[in-house]
Amino acid sequence: MFVEGRLHRTIEASGDLTRVTIIDQTALPFEFKLIDLKSLEDVIQAIKFMQVRGAPLIGVTSAYGIALAINNDSSDESLKKAAISLKESRPTAVNLEWAVNQMLEHLKGYDFHNRSKAAWLYANQLAEDDIKTNKDIGKAGLPLLKQINSTPLNILTHCNAGWLATIDHGTALSPIYQAVEEGVNIHVWVDETRPRNQGMNLTAWELTQANIPHTIISDNTGGLLMQQNKVDCVIVGADRISIEGQVCNKIGTYLKALAAKAHNIPFYVAAPLSTVDKNFMGEHHPFEIECRDPDELLRIKGMNSDGLISEVKIGLSNAYNPAFDITPPEYISKIICEKGSYNPGSIGTLL
Amino acid sequence: MFVEGRLHRTIEASGDLTRVTIIDQTALPFEFKLIDLKSLEDVIQAIKFMQVRGAPLIGVTSAYGIALAINNDSSDESLKKAAISLKESRPTAVNLEWAVNQMLEHLKGYDFHNRSKAAWLYANQLAEDDIKTNKDIGKAGLPLLKQINSTPLNILTHCNAGWLATIDHGTALSPIYQAVEEGVNIHVWVDETRPRNQGMNLTAWELTQANIPHTIISDNTGGLLMQQNKVDCVIVGADRISIEGQVCNKIGTYLKALAAKAHNIPFYVAAPLSTVDKNFMGEHHPFEIECRDPDELLRIKGMNSDGLISEVKIGLSNAYNPAFDITPPEYISKIICEKGSYNPGSIGTLL
Repeated sequence: MFVEGRLHRTIEASGDLTRVTIIDQTALPFEFKLIDLKSLEDVIQAIKFMQVRGAPLIGVTSAYGIALAINNDSSDESLKKAAISLKESRPTAVNLEWAVNQMLEHLKGYDFHNRSKAAWLYANQLAEDDIKTNKDIGKAGLPLLKQINSTPLNILTHCNAGWLATIDHGTALSPIYQAVEEGVNIHVWVDETRPRNQGMNLTAWELTQANIPHTIISDNTGGLLMQQNKVDCVIVGADRISIEGQVCNKIGTYLKALAAKAHNIPFYVAAPLSTVDKNFMGEHHPFEIECRDPDELLRIKGMNSDGLISEVKIGLSNAYNPAFDITPPEYISKIICEKGSYNPGSIGTLL
Repeated sequence: MFVEGRLHRTIEASGDLTRVTIIDQTALPFEFKLIDLKSLEDVIQAIKFMQVRGAPLIGVTSAYGIALAINNDSSDESLKKAAISLKESRPTAVNLEWAVNQMLEHLKGYDFHNRSKAAWLYANQLAEDDIKTNKDIGKAGLPLLKQINSTPLNILTHCNAGWLATIDHGTALSPIYQAVEEGVNIHVWVDETRPRNQGMNLTAWELTQANIPHTIISDNTGGLLMQQNKVDCVIVGADRISIEGQVCNKIGTYLKALAAKAHNIPFYVAAPLSTVDKNFMGEHHPFEIECRDPDELLRIKGMNSDGLISEVKIGLSNAYNPAFDITPPEYISKIICEKGSYNPGSIGTLL
């Protein structure tokens, strides 16, 4: 997508196969900052500290992590260790595990000497695949938006499932970008998305870059807007989807799904099929929600009166910071993926 | 309630009837700061900038505003102007209008010369009445808490309906304070309550002062906690209640009510009967939700690394900041008032 007139992807490999350049997403919306990752450790830190985030982007970044690890040591041992530490860097996004496994599987066919180049080429391929997949998600979601008769079309989204969460185009925002290209008049309600404010920091920034009208709201506001008929549909992304159509996504998604159901408002989840996990939420697979540092809730970063980025402490008591919740299939109108839009209960049949 | 070992009320009139002392609630939780209001203008500013907030406290503060206005000019004209400007200072809390009307009605019986003292005495009386009412709300709510068989009893609350929202004891927190006094083991989930963070700033501070175990959560978290059976009941306050039992309360209340209903968790609203408004939500009384400055959402105050209170800008796009939503009676288990606990549909019969 365009940033200040120049085309960007969220991650780009250097021509000499020694580093990848990412957008430091912790610096947005105040600063558009590119940084280089030159080692497996750099990649793990970037994932842990959420300089890259969003399930599809985490997946591709971890693929490049494997490539960087092999640059340093192409042995089986090194490959295995890299895979383990990458998988441990963020537990929820199934795409991470998926991308690492794809890399391992692919590299089986190469001996030590040829692994490095093969790894880079395959990571590049996963990045290209992601872009194509997201474009297809946009195509699949477009008719769902076009069938709603409302001007402007008011769409509510939670967290960031835009191009910043992927390599390009986004998942939840991909149908919106395509609809706007076709001249549909859209306004987006952007949930702030506490505690890390991905809506306020990332989604609002993305939509500003794309000149799409939008308004930031507190996470508390969606219910009132639905009561007032100011929301025509909800679209969110997903971090993990079970074959029964249960959707694990950013904390707070479930509350919006409950409200959408109460007001007969379509609630769409947009995600690539790589987000579907056969082992998720089955009888023998209870799912543990990732809990993050309470300081994410109790401290916040912003721009002070001197124009400098400064962190302030806003709360003094204990806090609990689970990062995701699970929305049951009965609250989801359709899951939009690269193959089309499906009832949540049938998503497992596409694998 | 006790603050640092000393008994406090949220507002106290001076013996010489020239000023009232309030707790500046915008300075909490970082600083416990008392300030004097010496004129009607001081009172209006304190209400507008939410140095005092909470429907019952706004009511009593506005009664003292009338007394301060009369200190300056006891004419009918002055009284009338004071009443109008007070009513305009915050539109939602019906208690404000109620308290001002009570004062006007009471002062009708006094001529210019005797008005001042009568006003102070009557404002004091309203403050005492509020304390008694809240104590009775606590008594009425206590059996509802005691009938839940869970240790600890996990209660979720939104915004601040504690003693800081009243003169003492609180509304939603009053049954909790009484239950803790009787030895019930309680843990409170405190919704942060964006955008003004009354949960994080005020409720958590109150519960810390009272040594009641509690945990701050983002407003997005309640749904997950209910899914995980970690919430036994929800108690909130109210800013305005219709005779049909519709409850106008802090934005986000409705989303928690939807979730409580979906999980069969009792959802209680605690408020004095003065919160019930016969004219609210009737056929000819559409209700306009108070919208506040978007900067409440886009800027936030906290303590910087030098230990100083500093405001930072956290969002750059447009924002929309409605302060309340309306929870329909079918989502409310009981309304707890000073006369007992009632089905929401029957609250109008108590007037």
